[in-house]
Amino acid sequence: MKTSLLVISAAFLYFSFAKKTKEEGTYVKDITELNTAIHTASPGDEIIMANGNWNDIQIKFVGYGNEKQPIILRAETAGKVIISGQSDLKLGGEYLIVSGLYFTNGASPSDAVIDFAINKDTVANHSRVTNTVILDFNKAQRNQTDLWVLFNGRYNELDHCYIAGKSNRGPTVRIDLAGNKSIKNHHKIHDNYFGPRPPKGGPSAETIQLGNSYTSMAPSYTVVSNNFFDRCNGEVEIISSKTNFNEFRNNVFYKSEGSLVTRHGNYCLIDGNYFIGDTDSEQIGGVRLIGTGHWVTNNYFFNLKGKTFRSPLAVMNGIPKSPLNRYLQVTDVVVANNSWINCDSPWQFGVGTNVDQKEILPLSEIRSARPIRTIVANNLIYNDKGDQQPIVAHDSIDGIDFENNIINNQGVSFEKVSGLEAKGFTVSELEENVFIPASDISGTELYNGFEFDQIKTDIFGNFREDKNSVGAIVETPSEKPNLMDRSQYGPDWFTSEATNSVVNKTHSVGSVSQLTKAIQKAKSGDTIVLTSNRYKLKTPLKIEKDLTIRSEDKSKKAIIQYNGQEKTPAFEMNPKGELTLIDLILKGTGEQYAFASLKNNMSSLYNLSVVDSKISDFDYVLKAYKLSFSEYIKFKSTAITNCANGIELSEETDDRGEYNAENILINACQFKEVGKNVIDYYRGGYDESTVGGNLVVTNSSFTKCGAQEEDGVLLNTYGIINVELSGNKFLDNPVKFVARLWGAKNNTHSNNEIKNSGELIVEENLPLKLMY
Amino acid sequence: MKTSLLVISAAFLYFSFAKKTKEEGTYVKDITELNTAIHTASPGDEIIMANGNWNDIQIKFVGYGNEKQPIILRAETAGKVIISGQSDLKLGGEYLIVSGLYFTNGASPSDAVIDFAINKDTVANHSRVTNTVILDFNKAQRNQTDLWVLFNGRYNELDHCYIAGKSNRGPTVRIDLAGNKSIKNHHKIHDNYFGPRPPKGGPSAETIQLGNSYTSMAPSYTVVSNNFFDRCNGEVEIISSKTNFNEFRNNVFYKSEGSLVTRHGNYCLIDGNYFIGDTDSEQIGGVRLIGTGHWVTNNYFFNLKGKTFRSPLAVMNGIPKSPLNRYLQVTDVVVANNSWINCDSPWQFGVGTNVDQKEILPLSEIRSARPIRTIVANNLIYNDKGDQQPIVAHDSIDGIDFENNIINNQGVSFEKVSGLEAKGFTVSELEENVFIPASDISGTELYNGFEFDQIKTDIFGNFREDKNSVGAIVETPSEKPNLMDRSQYGPDWFTSEATNSVVNKTHSVGSVSQLTKAIQKAKSGDTIVLTSNRYKLKTPLKIEKDLTIRSEDKSKKAIIQYNGQEKTPAFEMNPKGELTLIDLILKGTGEQYAFASLKNNMSSLYNLSVVDSKISDFDYVLKAYKLSFSEYIKFKSTAITNCANGIELSEETDDRGEYNAENILINACQFKEVGKNVIDYYRGGYDESTVGGNLVVTNSSFTKCGAQEEDGVLLNTYGIINVELSGNKFLDNPVKFVARLWGAKNNTHSNNEIKNSGELIVEENLPLKLMY
Repeated sequence: MKTSLLVISAAFLYFSFAKKTKEEGTYVKDITELNTAIHTASPGDEIIMANGNWNDIQIKFVGYGNEKQPIILRAETAGKVIISGQSDLKLGGEYLIVSGLYFTNGASPSDAVIDFAINKDTVANHSRVTNTVILDFNKAQRNQTDLWVLFNGRYNELDHCYIAGKSNRGPTVRIDLAGNKSIKNHHKIHDNYFGPRPPKGGPSAETIQLGNSYTSMAPSYTVVSNNFFDRCNGEVEIISSKTNFNEFRNNVFYKSEGSLVTRHGNYCLIDGNYFIGDTDSEQIGGVRLIGTGHWVTNNYFFNLKGKTFRSPLAVMNGIPKSPLNRYLQVTDVVVANNSWINCDSPWQFGVGTNVDQKEILPLSEIRSARPIRTIVANNLIYNDKGDQQPIVAHDSIDGIDFENNIINNQGVSFEKVSGLEAKGFTVSELEENVFIPASDISGTELYNGFEFDQIKTDIFGNFREDKNSVGAIVETPSEKPNLMDRSQYGPDWFTSEATNSVVNKTHSVGSVSQLTKAIQKAKSGDTIVLTSNRYKLKTPLKIEKDLTIRSEDKSKKAIIQYNGQEKTPAFEMNPKGELTLIDLILKGTGEQYAFASLKNNMSSLYNLSVVDSKISDFDYVLKAYKLSFSEYIKFKSTAITNCANGIELSEETDDRGEYNAENILINACQFKEVGKNVIDYYRGGYDESTVGGNLVVTNSSFTKCGAQEEDGVLLNTYGIINVELSGNKFLDNPVKFVARLWGAKNNTHSNNEIKNSGELIVEENLPLKLMY
Repeated sequence: MKTSLLVISAAFLYFSFAKKTKEEGTYVKDITELNTAIHTASPGDEIIMANGNWNDIQIKFVGYGNEKQPIILRAETAGKVIISGQSDLKLGGEYLIVSGLYFTNGASPSDAVIDFAINKDTVANHSRVTNTVILDFNKAQRNQTDLWVLFNGRYNELDHCYIAGKSNRGPTVRIDLAGNKSIKNHHKIHDNYFGPRPPKGGPSAETIQLGNSYTSMAPSYTVVSNNFFDRCNGEVEIISSKTNFNEFRNNVFYKSEGSLVTRHGNYCLIDGNYFIGDTDSEQIGGVRLIGTGHWVTNNYFFNLKGKTFRSPLAVMNGIPKSPLNRYLQVTDVVVANNSWINCDSPWQFGVGTNVDQKEILPLSEIRSARPIRTIVANNLIYNDKGDQQPIVAHDSIDGIDFENNIINNQGVSFEKVSGLEAKGFTVSELEENVFIPASDISGTELYNGFEFDQIKTDIFGNFREDKNSVGAIVETPSEKPNLMDRSQYGPDWFTSEATNSVVNKTHSVGSVSQLTKAIQKAKSGDTIVLTSNRYKLKTPLKIEKDLTIRSEDKSKKAIIQYNGQEKTPAFEMNPKGELTLIDLILKGTGEQYAFASLKNNMSSLYNLSVVDSKISDFDYVLKAYKLSFSEYIKFKSTAITNCANGIELSEETDDRGEYNAENILINACQFKEVGKNVIDYYRGGYDESTVGGNLVVTNSSFTKCGAQEEDGVLLNTYGIINVELSGNKFLDNPVKFVARLWGAKNNTHSNNEIKNSGELIVEENLPLKLMY
């Protein structure tokens, strides 16, 4: 079905553009010519932007075409018109089409890269942006907010685009509904490839946001269909639906760390989507429901391991008489004819209940209103390995009507709920990630709920009238969905990095100057091998790509002696810098930093791994500045000795839910004589839907550390959601507390040996600053 | 237009019923026959209820007709089938019609008199109740809640009915939207006569309520059109719209003390309605707006004198991020092409702002969010007498866009607002209460806002495409609306009391037995004249109709000496009792009450007036029990002497906004030696939209009163919204306070003489119990 849609769509594009050749249109070479062409364009006109680099241009595409004769603005050759620098595109008028542009190496100077409005009064209607790429078009710092595509007006369309790499604050795509001109908008977002969006480390990093709480009463009717969401990991919500009557159909959510969430607004349809997880990740969610009247039908959930907020189906508790921007109670929701394959505890109800926090939160924050008038019927669960708890009831489920659901739990017993019956059936692999029932389940009785006759097809488009059954799939499709064929999504001219094959090189260097040059010259993914014993480094090494640096001989680790200026780092972590150090000895003279982010303009995240190495005599091991962000900080089998400060990730003190790193993993390391901030990891601001950061400290030792610690805590994890401390030794650390863990969240400790080092305590509830 | 609609509608009725005669249908004489007929009915069948009194029947009309062949349940003769006693009617199924019933002398034993549902699972769809009357079908006490017509399901209709007299708690008509079966309901309420509904003295007495705050996100699409609302005075909201996409078209609101309010929910249309006021009343309002996206067009407002919540156009302030059941901000509202004729300060914005109460109310109660993105355009204001303040800005009006509005203010200057221009034009009377522009205003420039082309006609149905102008009226209609011809509304067989002419009688009585008999025998509106000097009364006189009792010779006032049991009243005020005493001397022996309500079963209100009389030697002058209610308590030129208690109206202590009397008017009276509760008038519970009660004490004297007063306040007015104390004398009353007035509300005092009587103080803010 997807393939045929693509063909139709491609045919349409061909039809649209084939009528006009370059000769017929208005060919423009610079902004002046472009503006003139725009100002003089009539219905049916085509404006052709010359191939090449268009730097620092702000295009205001105002025109009035009509249904049969749109005004077209397109690249001479799709993908060869590069929009870079401080550039953006605004559309205003009627029936406009933009096609074939490539936004990269730049950022919008305004609130949006592409805006379907010139200003409040002049919006675009019936207009379309297609076959276009926006790649890494980030503002300099993550706190600088923008949107990459901002919808205003009505009946606009974003299709066959590739959009990836947004790191700064703000949803990638947003629908704006303030003002009657932008309600009942019937926008369409379809056949796009939403490439990876890295975690932002805090809120406001959705891939698509439809409205906001202030316009959550507006009828929107936006349709999001046939898109591929590839590792859209920005935050806990991949799609945040905040208006009414939106539809989400036939999308693929591939290993995306978040959920499709009906955050505000009501009466949305979630039909025929694929949610593909990863057995290694608990971050990948499915559908999270808040509000009234949503229908969740024909969806396929595979290999999802997320819990609570990120569970495969999370039906939340609401706040009684909720404030506009908080949690409406779930009522009148229908979840029917979906399939869950190899998902852990897929159905969770009353998610977010926090009645036990009545003492520390205001009443207007207490989610005590459990779902009511909700039907869960005709669904299918299959588990290769039986699940002891397919249903998790965080609150009473007396408001849920379970009808005619079946589960193959491999004979493993689970708490019985009337309406979910164990049944023996098998599944088989149709294609990668897609399993379909292999034994006939069409005989299973079906619940015929109110308007269930409106569930006309299955996920593949098979008509249920002909043959019906529980689950998302009634029979093998005539054509496979080819889910993982990424060429189905986005522009035909663009191939994402995920599908490029790159051969990585190794560079051997024997001196600091060779090292510096190699770092400059190397391609992302390359390895640099240190062949000498010692490198006397005087200025920071700038890391802005994916590099591994290691000693040639692991039994003779190379020494990098950094003698640079005080408060400068040996390795300066730039945006997109991903550094792995193996088998190295890194020394300072007590005044420098081993690693640090840039102080400003960290437009993308950086990552750092240190393995089998030694680090000593630095002021800081890692200094992460405010607004910097790392997805992974890993130290493994590494000794850290005689440093004034350790790993410092506590600069996000605005208490808006943001933090400096997503995952800190410390394994089998020895910290000795680190004066303070041994690990200092901070997140401030109460935001129940932020599910990071993550700190795992295992099998490591901390000896004589923390002597200069002012707050008396050796490992500071204030506000961090997931913390695991296990198998560590804490010896002779002159502190009051080894750690103060947050019991209400996922903070755990086990098998730690603590001698002469203060206490490791768990506090159930943390006083936090309310963000809302 | 109204007339022609009626003709069409009547034709349809004729068509529906003419095909079947009594012989063709199933004639039923009792509930058993009726039930059998219902159980066996097929599409197209007609069930005919025999004329007569059907007492204590609960009809469950379940059937499945179809569009062309509905199942009909009708009276043998419309109006001759009387449903009385403990009776109700429930409908369930498809395409049912009920016609010609007369509900009176009874009450529903359930939650509703007529319910478009049998139970949660079996609702009615495409069903209709027509040509039916519900009159005074009240439960025994006003705290016993019910609805008279409860809509469930979809596509149901209430038309050509007369419904009047509801006194108990609960809206007269309610649309229920809980559950997907009852959303998108497209119900129609049209051509009904909503007769007088007396004030209830507290909330929950709307004439029509569409949903509630919990279902306020639901799409409703109910249409309320061509109804006549005659003195629907139940509470501050005549119609309370609490869902989305409702339409209110071409209704007449005649001297109804309240407003059409978009209380919750959004995107409603208020078009072509008439709001007719009364120069004597400040209780009659127009349209009050809360929320988003409403359109108010083509409405006609006449002689409205209400203020703030009851102003002709009240655009409210919202609460930022409002809780579900409080006040959403006004956004994206359009008020266009309406006319205001002789209304005082018709446009009020930011109504309900209470930022000055931040100290005493929780933040979630502070209405500080002023209207934004709101257009007020192409409207017309005409004042016979210039208005110094046609626009009242309770908060900043920077969010309101005024465009092309005109006013004839007779040259009186007012604070200029761009977009409201003074213009000389005249109006002329088309018919009673309807004034239309007499000079040509079609040349006035019009604002062409977004979707203003959708305002296709004027209030009369004249096409604006042909000729357009500001205001609700572009030209004289081809046919007059005949607004006040009440025969247009409701059933054709029923004539409301308002149009009946009754000749009142006078009964002369010379003894107690004659008096007692005359009270029993008299018709409502009659007068009883006391011809003797003295009447020795031993048992209470029961007042259950409108009676005047007076002395024959005002210079020789008759004495009624009441010697009844202690704690019994001389005059027992029953439901619908309206007593006026003139020129009497009423005496007790110190242990009785002069007047009292029933202790229980006050199913309707009572009224009491005492003029030019003397009352002495009672335990209580007036004892109003809990759940009793009076619209008017008037004492004029009357001396009250030597009573233990005075006027006691303070039994409603549940603090839910209720109170015992709407208006207490004391003028030129002398209170002397009244021990306590001289006037004790109480309303508890914070409810900003309750605008009562009202106490006016003028030109009266209070001497040596309050000696036994425990709380030290002579005139207790706690929680009463409107209090006026002026021109009174307070002499030698041993109390701490004469009164403690509520400054934030409409409590005033002037020209009072206070000697040796404590203080008269004004407290700005009162600590009140929150109701929500």
